[in-house]
Amino acid sequence: MSSIQAENRKSLMLFSGRAFPELAEEIGGVLGVRPTPMDAYDFANGEIFVRYRESVRGCDAFVVESMSSPVNKWMMESLIMVDALKRGSAKRITVVLPFYPYARQDKKHKGREPISARLMADLYKTAGADRILTVDLHTAQVQGFFDGPVDHLFAMNLLAEYVEEKWGDRPITVVAPDSGRVRVAERWTDRLGGCPLAFIHKTRDPMKPNQIVANRVVGDVEGRVCIIVDDMIDTGGTIVRAAEILFDEGAADVVVAATHAILSDPATERLHNSKISEVVVTNTLPLPAQKVLDKITVLSIAPLIARAIREVFDDGSVTTLFGGLS
Amino acid sequence: MSSIQAENRKSLMLFSGRAFPELAEEIGGVLGVRPTPMDAYDFANGEIFVRYRESVRGCDAFVVESMSSPVNKWMMESLIMVDALKRGSAKRITVVLPFYPYARQDKKHKGREPISARLMADLYKTAGADRILTVDLHTAQVQGFFDGPVDHLFAMNLLAEYVEEKWGDRPITVVAPDSGRVRVAERWTDRLGGCPLAFIHKTRDPMKPNQIVANRVVGDVEGRVCIIVDDMIDTGGTIVRAAEILFDEGAADVVVAATHAILSDPATERLHNSKISEVVVTNTLPLPAQKVLDKITVLSIAPLIARAIREVFDDGSVTTLFGGLS
Amino acid sequence: MSSIQAENRKSLMLFSGRAFPELAEEIGGVLGVRPTPMDAYDFANGEIFVRYRESVRGCDAFVVESMSSPVNKWMMESLIMVDALKRGSAKRITVVLPFYPYARQDKKHKGREPISARLMADLYKTAGADRILTVDLHTAQVQGFFDGPVDHLFAMNLLAEYVEEKWGDRPITVVAPDSGRVRVAERWTDRLGGCPLAFIHKTRDPMKPNQIVANRVVGDVEGRVCIIVDDMIDTGGTIVRAAEILFDEGAADVVVAATHAILSDPATERLHNSKISEVVVTNTLPLPAQKVLDKITVLSIAPLIARAIREVFDDGSVTTLFGGLS
Amino acid sequence: MSSIQAENRKSLMLFSGRAFPELAEEIGGVLGVRPTPMDAYDFANGEIFVRYRESVRGCDAFVVESMSSPVNKWMMESLIMVDALKRGSAKRITVVLPFYPYARQDKKHKGREPISARLMADLYKTAGADRILTVDLHTAQVQGFFDGPVDHLFAMNLLAEYVEEKWGDRPITVVAPDSGRVRVAERWTDRLGGCPLAFIHKTRDPMKPNQIVANRVVGDVEGRVCIIVDDMIDTGGTIVRAAEILFDEGAADVVVAATHAILSDPATERLHNSKISEVVVTNTLPLPAQKVLDKITVLSIAPLIARAIREVFDDGSVTTLFGGLS
Amino acid sequence: MSSIQAENRKSLMLFSGRAFPELAEEIGGVLGVRPTPMDAYDFANGEIFVRYRESVRGCDAFVVESMSSPVNKWMMESLIMVDALKRGSAKRITVVLPFYPYARQDKKHKGREPISARLMADLYKTAGADRILTVDLHTAQVQGFFDGPVDHLFAMNLLAEYVEEKWGDRPITVVAPDSGRVRVAERWTDRLGGCPLAFIHKTRDPMKPNQIVANRVVGDVEGRVCIIVDDMIDTGGTIVRAAEILFDEGAADVVVAATHAILSDPATERLHNSKISEVVVTNTLPLPAQKVLDKITVLSIAPLIARAIREVFDDGSVTTLFGGLS
Amino acid sequence: MSSIQAENRKSLMLFSGRAFPELAEEIGGVLGVRPTPMDAYDFANGEIFVRYRESVRGCDAFVVESMSSPVNKWMMESLIMVDALKRGSAKRITVVLPFYPYARQDKKHKGREPISARLMADLYKTAGADRILTVDLHTAQVQGFFDGPVDHLFAMNLLAEYVEEKWGDRPITVVAPDSGRVRVAERWTDRLGGCPLAFIHKTRDPMKPNQIVANRVVGDVEGRVCIIVDDMIDTGGTIVRAAEILFDEGAADVVVAATHAILSDPATERLHNSKISEVVVTNTLPLPAQKVLDKITVLSIAPLIARAIREVFDDGSVTTLFGGLS
Repeated sequence: MSSIQAENRKSLMLFSGRAFPELAEEIGGVLGVRPTPMDAYDFANGEIFVRYRESVRGCDAFVVESMSSPVNKWMMESLIMVDALKRGSAKRITVVLPFYPYARQDKKHKGREPISARLMADLYKTAGADRILTVDLHTAQVQGFFDGPVDHLFAMNLLAEYVEEKWGDRPITVVAPDSGRVRVAERWTDRLGGCPLAFIHKTRDPMKPNQIVANRVVGDVEGRVCIIVDDMIDTGGTIVRAAEILFDEGAADVVVAATHAILSDPATERLHNSKISEVVVTNTLPLPAQKVLDKITVLSIAPLIARAIREVFDDGSVTTLFGGLS
Repeated sequence: MSSIQAENRKSLMLFSGRAFPELAEEIGGVLGVRPTPMDAYDFANGEIFVRYRESVRGCDAFVVESMSSPVNKWMMESLIMVDALKRGSAKRITVVLPFYPYARQDKKHKGREPISARLMADLYKTAGADRILTVDLHTAQVQGFFDGPVDHLFAMNLLAEYVEEKWGDRPITVVAPDSGRVRVAERWTDRLGGCPLAFIHKTRDPMKPNQIVANRVVGDVEGRVCIIVDDMIDTGGTIVRAAEILFDEGAADVVVAATHAILSDPATERLHNSKISEVVVTNTLPLPAQKVLDKITVLSIAPLIARAIREVFDDGSVTTLFGGLS
Repeated sequence: MSSIQAENRKSLMLFSGRAFPELAEEIGGVLGVRPTPMDAYDFANGEIFVRYRESVRGCDAFVVESMSSPVNKWMMESLIMVDALKRGSAKRITVVLPFYPYARQDKKHKGREPISARLMADLYKTAGADRILTVDLHTAQVQGFFDGPVDHLFAMNLLAEYVEEKWGDRPITVVAPDSGRVRVAERWTDRLGGCPLAFIHKTRDPMKPNQIVANRVVGDVEGRVCIIVDDMIDTGGTIVRAAEILFDEGAADVVVAATHAILSDPATERLHNSKISEVVVTNTLPLPAQKVLDKITVLSIAPLIARAIREVFDDGSVTTLFGGLS
Repeated sequence: MSSIQAENRKSLMLFSGRAFPELAEEIGGVLGVRPTPMDAYDFANGEIFVRYRESVRGCDAFVVESMSSPVNKWMMESLIMVDALKRGSAKRITVVLPFYPYARQDKKHKGREPISARLMADLYKTAGADRILTVDLHTAQVQGFFDGPVDHLFAMNLLAEYVEEKWGDRPITVVAPDSGRVRVAERWTDRLGGCPLAFIHKTRDPMKPNQIVANRVVGDVEGRVCIIVDDMIDTGGTIVRAAEILFDEGAADVVVAATHAILSDPATERLHNSKISEVVVTNTLPLPAQKVLDKITVLSIAPLIARAIREVFDDGSVTTLFGGLS
Repeated sequence: MSSIQAENRKSLMLFSGRAFPELAEEIGGVLGVRPTPMDAYDFANGEIFVRYRESVRGCDAFVVESMSSPVNKWMMESLIMVDALKRGSAKRITVVLPFYPYARQDKKHKGREPISARLMADLYKTAGADRILTVDLHTAQVQGFFDGPVDHLFAMNLLAEYVEEKWGDRPITVVAPDSGRVRVAERWTDRLGGCPLAFIHKTRDPMKPNQIVANRVVGDVEGRVCIIVDDMIDTGGTIVRAAEILFDEGAADVVVAATHAILSDPATERLHNSKISEVVVTNTLPLPAQKVLDKITVLSIAPLIARAIREVFDDGSVTTLFGGLS
Repeated sequence: MSSIQAENRKSLMLFSGRAFPELAEEIGGVLGVRPTPMDAYDFANGEIFVRYRESVRGCDAFVVESMSSPVNKWMMESLIMVDALKRGSAKRITVVLPFYPYARQDKKHKGREPISARLMADLYKTAGADRILTVDLHTAQVQGFFDGPVDHLFAMNLLAEYVEEKWGDRPITVVAPDSGRVRVAERWTDRLGGCPLAFIHKTRDPMKPNQIVANRVVGDVEGRVCIIVDDMIDTGGTIVRAAEILFDEGAADVVVAATHAILSDPATERLHNSKISEVVVTNTLPLPAQKVLDKITVLSIAPLIARAIREVFDDGSVTTLFGGLS
């Protein structure tokens, strides 16, 4: 006989980085699979070591790493986890990045700058990743930075459903906090039944780079509930300033809806001190207990990610999860 | 003796595709070098043949191809020209694309779509291009699609200087024709001394994809000269509709400023029939005589490109040409 | 549980470019699968957009594109289709090229020329193609231009069977229309039972490149049916001139057998006006109705391609389809 | 229907180079599969030709090549075999190298040297190998030279089990023949229950490169059975010299245990003439009859390799075969 | 004219990461060039941004990053710096790593582990590094992990010269702290005129992985000054334990010589409390003031690195710097 | 100062493999540079070691390796030499292959075969070669197998000049020894002023692969001097049989002109015993004294190769050396 025949089954395995194991556990709970046991620790000088406790040969691997602070550590950990899977003969490796690292550095503003979002995509490719699965990229073009399939999920439906239920009986205006977010805000107005749209126009002196001279509201906000929509809240500065201007222009209420709650200091304090009524976010990033204000509502992204992983494994159609947004 | 020493000089050579040889000639005129003579013709079935009439060994090659219609032909021609340079031992190959092809397909809107702008970057890399030099990308993120240096030039200063001189004594509002262009329009307001900003808000029914329900102007346009700014004018539909709404809302005059004059049919007719006062464009693409209306003003992009080529060859700083815009 | 197990089935999907959908339909008909529905259209400036209407995740994809005129458009379309499959997570992508584009530019004749046939292979690889399936390459070495498996099918058996049946009762000489085709012609003589072989010797003046001084027949053709064999008929010039010389040398009849009927103008007119009795071709390329002369016989290549696709999908042996020819 | 579904089975095929077909046969015997029939011969000028007699489409291919002399010929043959598998559409290609070629050139000692062990890994990758399976690398770091999974098997258990049974009732010291082998020797002391460890300290004059001034034994060997352990025996010079010094220092007996029996001339003669009692090796390399002295014991590596191949094919865990050694 | 000629000069530029700017300054001081001014800062969530303040076009770039804690941050910073240089058209990029990150994870000990030292090499390659320059790799094989030139410098001469001068009038034994370091220790014995060599033999129970049962000294240390040589001191555990055993065996004095002073906690405390007389290290890594004990002597590595950079820039011979050691 | 400026000179260095050092010496003599001193030897098991005795940093390296028997050894040696140059920081590496190895295996005749000529090109690329310079490829398409510039030189002018002078006063027919060589023979007829052309038609039974049934001369040879032209003479079987048939058909004299004198046994004996008057070859391969018959004339290829190397180094035009042949 010159060949040995065998049935060719496929096997899904989930791997969790140490940045936010609770999210991976929650995703695994929905899928019905627990994250593969792994030894992972830091050497004294910060170098990371990982080893899987079970064979990963031939598996369809999904590595979940939530890029919270310290980002560079979790970035390196996820690369090392992918390398270990490649060298351990995993069949296909999908990196699940609820929050894509360095997504904001997606172009050169001046010369002699990196395009770090592309670099991250190339680093994953080099380590051995075949696919990326991510949520609400800062700009959708980042999909094209990876040389392979990217499944791009959207949290808008999740967030908008909540906002609609909670605030939908009042007159709403969707507000983009800056000129680069108007397109996304426009999609929200469609989702919320064609409500008005406004944005904050920032004026700069071209002779004084990076210095904002004035903020003006363009659009109709007086007496309305303003929903500021953004992909992320980092230090909260932009959003809190936007809220202040909106109140100055007569806004009745301000609500913030954003996918990624980075909440770097002093975001929590700023939000707390602001007149913003409610901040709706998802758990793509871990939110330490001390940062959870009463006015912050956290919706779970785990069911959406779990469904996408299952579709990828089953060769089904993830598109239906996308809600028409890109 | 175990080595032969020689002086190592560098040599700039310019190569012109057949899409728009006049532009390459003009660039060469500014630089003081004529495009390298080349045999190029189409076989009867459309296959393209090229051969350079002079040695290209060791040269710093700049291949200028203007991506006018038929785009796919010129795309293939430029790839073949790069391949011939690679196989002919050129030292470094920069592709000069005054208009980057397929720039609009820069992300997947739904699943199962290509990201053609990335594909073009990869095809150039494969053929042997080391660098890309281009003008006013549809989205700046496309820079990151190429695995190597991209010099991204901006025509805003050129266009804005003209607009300011011609229309600057009247009250101006800069208008973005859709939500995705608001950021670029904001830069124009800075360049024009902090004038107001408006945009056209398009409402879609989420149940009926791609179908626009209503257009509304957001911002102050009444009695003002509206400068609609965009990166390109293709069939002119979006811009002419925007102009109509602006006039409906009381605009005094409408002027259009755009870098790339694709002017696919029926753009010329539409612009002619519209109440738009003036259309200012550059010659990144060839403009056939029959398309040049009285109201169209064409500014030459050649000096800007020539300066950038010279800076690249001299290892100087192209950044100063960028005008702070990205 | 740390893994989810599932059965791993495989799934063949067929994709058709727009160059010659009838051929893909015919191939699909033999296979029992219809080409996957696809939205494909050209933007006003010629840029191509494609989107598949069904999920392609995990499929074994076969993209059929027939490289008729305009070749560069269909080349770009097929690259874009492959990119969309790659980004849509197809498992394996085979490009089916009944006629390989740019096959004639398979070497540098002088320096500073491209090797476009290799470039095309590299472009497919870059876009994401895993395999190529093609018919009667201009030179078999083109197989080696692709970094991966190439299935090279031969139409000789199909054509020769027809010729033998129709003309086999008369004395036959197989004729190579130029010195580069003698090897292929020799294979035909074997296939036709060892009949004589002749070819047209072209004399050039080495001082006047590309200018032919004289054509002579080498070999025995007087009173015989001459079967001119070639891989393609482009403008028909070479073949019609060969026929004239053969008649001058006393040929009784001239029949042409060629796989690829490019028939660029004025091929149809030339063939019509010639004394050639019959032209036998296959439908690797579309043949518009107005080009189909009475003396042209078109044999279908679809069954051969369909069998090869099925063998590839089933991991069977395509070699048996090759007829010993390379 | 827009897809054809089929069951996706997997199929293991074994391929044997001509260096040591008996080993491949033996491995195949354990696995229950015979090596795939292949035509392989040398052209008169030494170029190698191979062709498989059965279809290899879709198979999980294991190419066994034992790198005996002439190493370069077998290296090229195995590369050509991999290329033929790649072009013949094998699904996955594992190169089984019982003895990794050029493993000793794993770093630059001075500048301007190759790192040939890395080069070999890259050549296999280029030819199309997906994985490497090898036994007792000269340094374990060579695993990292290949960009993909390497399964690294260890013969220590096989050798140590034999040594323990035969010599375990006498007082044993494990001896490293030079300073670079002390780590491996230490692992043997663990395997043999914590026995003492010694090594040969070589003194060089830093002014006279590569010239050894003196050899000294460091460690306790008097009256003991010294087991010299090494990965390979090439010309036997190092080992025989080590044995002499050990006897000078009062060793009772000297036994050599090594995985790879290269036994280049004059190794056999040297071993024969030495006072070494026994030389235990494996058959990772062919051992011609005339080289098999009475004192040489050859253990078969085939069962270990066969088990590893089966585990790889079954996506099982090869780690358990490794015996904790790396 | 169809080309522009210009003189082709070359230009060395130095770039310093933020891990240890003092070292880069010192290297620049020797070379006579100051590090290129750079804006570098961390976003609130830890993402790093860099931008060079001068044009880097066409330069021969040397990026110095000292991999101190937090290693992952500096690793990412150096990758981002390389990306910015690549996109800014630097001609050649050499990464100068006085301490190579993750050098210890240079092989898989068990299956399903990463080979992180190879991964780091590949990440640098992907980011755009052409060359690596490093000092005293943990294993010399790591050179082969990078696909390009690696200049590997050795600090032994620097350290040994100091040790010889300070301790050379007493009887010296060089001691390897474990079995893997014996080869390096042997080179020290040559450098120190052929003095004796000893090492610490660690015994493990093969049933209890990673647990050491006993440490024994092999070799002659009684009444001698023991120079423990190692490439790095991390937490100091191994070295301090080795010193204790040496004193137990009668050592007169113990001196430690090591290139890389990682000195993770509690190394300083351990060294302070030990009976070790002196610890000689270099400044490949920054040594905070509070860690500098009286018994620690720090020699500067900057002159050696500066000379190597100059040789690389001048196409001279770095080999002469290597001291024959690899 | 933030940069150090220096003049950028270039430096040609020649490297000779051990296959045919006399040719490299002769080339070096013409160029005025001696091959760089190199240590190269074989380990006992056949592994090759090389080290250059001078720094190769920054040089423009030309590695000459003549692929005589044992081909695989010299192939590996040249790869290892290229690797050593890459790791030693050579700036550009050109492999000079007077006879390209495995050129005949340039396509798959059946399935499951390698395309070894492509594999060799890829192996050189992987090792680090930037360019290839070769003479009279078996098929010109092999140029396209390498991903980079290939300079393809032709010996026809050299050979034809000699033949014309010696035999030009008699009536000549150029003869292709088989159907695949007719094109090359046709070029000879042009070079020799338009003389007649003939070839040997081989008839095979399609049912009995590889078995030739009959050989016939097609073309006019009676009473003429027949110049059999070929790229190589291996065992001489084809050529000697061709000569016999030509004499049978009345040839007055038979002369053989071929570039590559492989002359594997029993070529010398066959040529000696044949009625062939003269065999004209070049020294692309070494010709041992015992193989040089009186009737064999060896012309030196060194001047042609030396001129090409000089042109490559000087960025001149090699095309003029090509004689219009490809």
